[in-house]
Amino acid sequence: MSMIVDRRDLDFILFDLLGMDELLRHERFAAFDRDACTQMLDTAQAIAEELFLPIAAEVDAQEPRFVDGRVEMPEGTGRALRACAAAGFFALPFALEHGGLQAPRVLHTAASGIFTCANTAVANYAFLTVGAANLLAAFGSAALRQNFLPPMLEGRWFGTMCLSEPQAGSSLADITTTATPRADGTFSLRGSKMWISGGDQEVSENIVHMVLARIAGAPAGTRGISLFLVPKRRVDESGAVGASNNIALAGLNHKMGQRGTTNCLLNFGESGETIGYLIGEAHRGLGYMFQMMNEARIGVGHAATMSALAGYRHSAEYARTRIQGRKAGQKDPAAAAVPIIEHADIRRMLLAQKAAVEGAQALCLYAAQLVDRQEIATDAAEAEWLGTLLGLLTPVVKSWPSEHCLEANKWAMQILGGYGYTRDYPLERLYRDNRLNHIHEGTFGIQGIDLVGRKLGGDNGEALRRFAAQMRETAARAGLQPTLAAEAARLGGALDQLERTAAALLGCADIPRRLANATVFLDAFGHVVIGWLWLWQALAATAARGGDASADERLFLEGKILTCRYFMAHELPLAVARLALCATLETSSLDAPAALFAL
Amino acid sequence: MSMIVDRRDLDFILFDLLGMDELLRHERFAAFDRDACTQMLDTAQAIAEELFLPIAAEVDAQEPRFVDGRVEMPEGTGRALRACAAAGFFALPFALEHGGLQAPRVLHTAASGIFTCANTAVANYAFLTVGAANLLAAFGSAALRQNFLPPMLEGRWFGTMCLSEPQAGSSLADITTTATPRADGTFSLRGSKMWISGGDQEVSENIVHMVLARIAGAPAGTRGISLFLVPKRRVDESGAVGASNNIALAGLNHKMGQRGTTNCLLNFGESGETIGYLIGEAHRGLGYMFQMMNEARIGVGHAATMSALAGYRHSAEYARTRIQGRKAGQKDPAAAAVPIIEHADIRRMLLAQKAAVEGAQALCLYAAQLVDRQEIATDAAEAEWLGTLLGLLTPVVKSWPSEHCLEANKWAMQILGGYGYTRDYPLERLYRDNRLNHIHEGTFGIQGIDLVGRKLGGDNGEALRRFAAQMRETAARAGLQPTLAAEAARLGGALDQLERTAAALLGCADIPRRLANATVFLDAFGHVVIGWLWLWQALAATAARGGDASADERLFLEGKILTCRYFMAHELPLAVARLALCATLETSSLDAPAALFAL
Repeated sequence: MSMIVDRRDLDFILFDLLGMDELLRHERFAAFDRDACTQMLDTAQAIAEELFLPIAAEVDAQEPRFVDGRVEMPEGTGRALRACAAAGFFALPFALEHGGLQAPRVLHTAASGIFTCANTAVANYAFLTVGAANLLAAFGSAALRQNFLPPMLEGRWFGTMCLSEPQAGSSLADITTTATPRADGTFSLRGSKMWISGGDQEVSENIVHMVLARIAGAPAGTRGISLFLVPKRRVDESGAVGASNNIALAGLNHKMGQRGTTNCLLNFGESGETIGYLIGEAHRGLGYMFQMMNEARIGVGHAATMSALAGYRHSAEYARTRIQGRKAGQKDPAAAAVPIIEHADIRRMLLAQKAAVEGAQALCLYAAQLVDRQEIATDAAEAEWLGTLLGLLTPVVKSWPSEHCLEANKWAMQILGGYGYTRDYPLERLYRDNRLNHIHEGTFGIQGIDLVGRKLGGDNGEALRRFAAQMRETAARAGLQPTLAAEAARLGGALDQLERTAAALLGCADIPRRLANATVFLDAFGHVVIGWLWLWQALAATAARGGDASADERLFLEGKILTCRYFMAHELPLAVARLALCATLETSSLDAPAALFAL
Repeated sequence: MSMIVDRRDLDFILFDLLGMDELLRHERFAAFDRDACTQMLDTAQAIAEELFLPIAAEVDAQEPRFVDGRVEMPEGTGRALRACAAAGFFALPFALEHGGLQAPRVLHTAASGIFTCANTAVANYAFLTVGAANLLAAFGSAALRQNFLPPMLEGRWFGTMCLSEPQAGSSLADITTTATPRADGTFSLRGSKMWISGGDQEVSENIVHMVLARIAGAPAGTRGISLFLVPKRRVDESGAVGASNNIALAGLNHKMGQRGTTNCLLNFGESGETIGYLIGEAHRGLGYMFQMMNEARIGVGHAATMSALAGYRHSAEYARTRIQGRKAGQKDPAAAAVPIIEHADIRRMLLAQKAAVEGAQALCLYAAQLVDRQEIATDAAEAEWLGTLLGLLTPVVKSWPSEHCLEANKWAMQILGGYGYTRDYPLERLYRDNRLNHIHEGTFGIQGIDLVGRKLGGDNGEALRRFAAQMRETAARAGLQPTLAAEAARLGGALDQLERTAAALLGCADIPRRLANATVFLDAFGHVVIGWLWLWQALAATAARGGDASADERLFLEGKILTCRYFMAHELPLAVARLALCATLETSSLDAPAALFAL
């Protein structure tokens, strides 16, 4: 049993659920048939098990250190990333014209998840590089692409995103880093950037920072922000790496988890000139960055899911092998003890994890596949809808796993009891690692405002109505199956409440009051979406459990149906209660005077 | 603003809510009037702020190490504990006849909480010593009490509880440590004990272990377990400390949090004879231990509450001083940024913490005060009822804070964003520390079985009915206040569902099916109890906000009413949904075959 991937489940989601065969028939993905996808996943699994997983505890315990102006960290990090890049995983989702392998995003997401599950701190460097390269590919000039993309796709240079500053984490309108035009068309950057993951390291030959900054005279707020490519070491016109670009590592942040990823305070232009290249047009940087952020947010949600997958598999393995206690009702103390997986509450905690992990996995891959479908859509209206749906779901994809897959990690640790609380097992590290996901790439609260303010308010609920209709279609199909009728009815009821609540929010002209309910609404909306994905999975499993399925296969499929039932019984009612609360436009957080707290 | 105690709230709970004045009038507590209580709390706060809080980060970062057969740890630990003991906090709850100060338990709990809030890892040593001394005072012979109690109450010797073994954490029926009678009436102990907090250290002059073991020929299971006092260093008849008692420290466990408390694997009788003294009668050890465990479980719930109190106060302070972003609806990017406490979602997270922390604080002090009231009750039926109620509430007191005050710590960290995730702030440590509370002293699942199996099943729901009637009385009184009528009605509805669900559980003769719903029931029952305590607090606040209250005082009291409203709106409906689920005697965890998980 692999501790880092459930290949059967991955196949089920990709092919049985999302119908990836159809996607692969598109000419854009001509190089990838199902076998090629399988091979990519095999390769990812082999490298992750050989090079990522074995150093996961080491990179946590031996946090990167700042020694003589350089970052020191365990050498396994570089070895793992080089193998990952050499096998093509940095280049995987990029277009052939950019030197990529032009695979579907959904395959790239699935493969990346295997590395993340094995070792999120090391996988982060690849994830950030792909994100930065994505930005460059989409908005960079031909000259910049030519010099910077190949080494990034080859994994020789890594990338970062430099948004936050010490005084501005969530409020990007307030960033103060400046970019001053130079005579040759480049810019001179000055300012401090905080929380920069992978901001410095010696693993790659160079680092390509994607930096938000203001050009002098730019409008205040988010409409005056531009995007710059700023290399750690300067790159000449031939693409050769030269002298330092004067980006000083001012400090490493010491985090609770994900410790193997450096997290830096960087000072630009302090000890000498820091040269950057404008990407796209001036003042439009935040829009570009958000295109990347949306994919990054899928990545963050998926990382949360992968930490939980690792915890789920470890705790299931432990529960099967740890012998303790007797079955409920067994009064004879001389009776043999049983594996703890025989205890109902242990199985409840495994079901809770399975529901969260496989639900979130389906969500993340569904979202990644929307990116693919949008890219290949020939009908403009269809492409626009897919983009809109992706926008609506992005806060959910980012936040639901960050909340509920963290909870899954909590239960994984609980199953191991005291052992789970020690550093001899990976559970406590997974829990620490996972806690970051609710914070970076836009906090839970920011995602709520994005959903209710921008996505829901932006089109007066139209996208939500259309998406709800799509979910109702699944419920209608499931309702025809006697074994799923009760679950279909539950989803239908939740959708009714979801739409009533959305209408109530939109009907509230008092924007602060509407937004005061945003985070709770986001969480509950996520539950409804996950409920829908579980019903869809149960429907697909029902269709697949034909007469010729093996016993193992039938067990797998029954597991999907049972977990759907679990989620609908245990979890969905909580969302209905939360949605009902939001429908009242609850005001306690607005009514509470600031002076009230911790007097 | 103190980071470790809210004295106004403590006074409110102790005096306005629990009516401690009446308790203090009892002759048993003649030495303690309200001023004396205030002085004890002042002293606790002064010592905790001066000696416990400043080393909290240090004892976390510099975990105890095993060097040359001895445990090394920062010396501040001993200094803090000596000051705590010298001020009388080890002796505080003990009877005068045992050398104690004979204060109410509820005062001891409140005072201990201040140390725990400042530094739970160091406070643990005191907590464990008081617990072990409690056992000795209640069940030990006069000779044992004479030799061992004074140095424990003076804080020169520390205590531990040795229950778990490597193969038996939760299943005490399966412990295998043996005790063989020696000619002089003492016993020779052999076996391994795991997860022993404070199991070894060099801070105290001796360590008094309370050890569960089997005498040869004892019945199998929990009815064959005896309790022994086993000192680290032998003690002669005059009480002088002598040679090693051959308890080998086989290893230190490396935990996620509470690192300043050693956690040990101890081997008894391996390198020589380990001598122990039988406490009370043979084979009755588990019953004795459970008397102590019940108080220890209040302590664990209270410790969870205290970690959350620290997080709440830190995050409130941060939210008031961190400037970022603009108020919702403010579109002008040039407008001044505001403290983040002005953002509704930040206040929602503060309210969630306040509701959890102050609700749990009221719960723990209510439980501690039941111990006092039971002790001084002259009416046998009244004493029995108080004991029964305490038994019913103990799983809630242990579990509700462990679950929901951990959640509070999550929100505290979230308010600080990236900063909260770094080790430069105490939030991530508090979150790590708090995670243990759901595991030790009986896991969440064990508490659920205790509640539904033993406490609810034991008297066919009689105690729950009587307690529910008591809660309904509060609801009836609150219902007469126009400002609380809606909240009173909500509690009434939740109580209806609680009683329906309890009846459904008790009506299910299939014990495994009944118990499969135990943990969810426990959690929801806890929510109802906390809802009751909030309604009670709101009622007390309503009564107190007379015309002569100062503006600060009125704000404090309004805060109680507002937080009650928050809890009833945001939290209680979740409990009703969970109770409704349990009423269906849901079976998914029983239906899921073990082979299903992580195939």
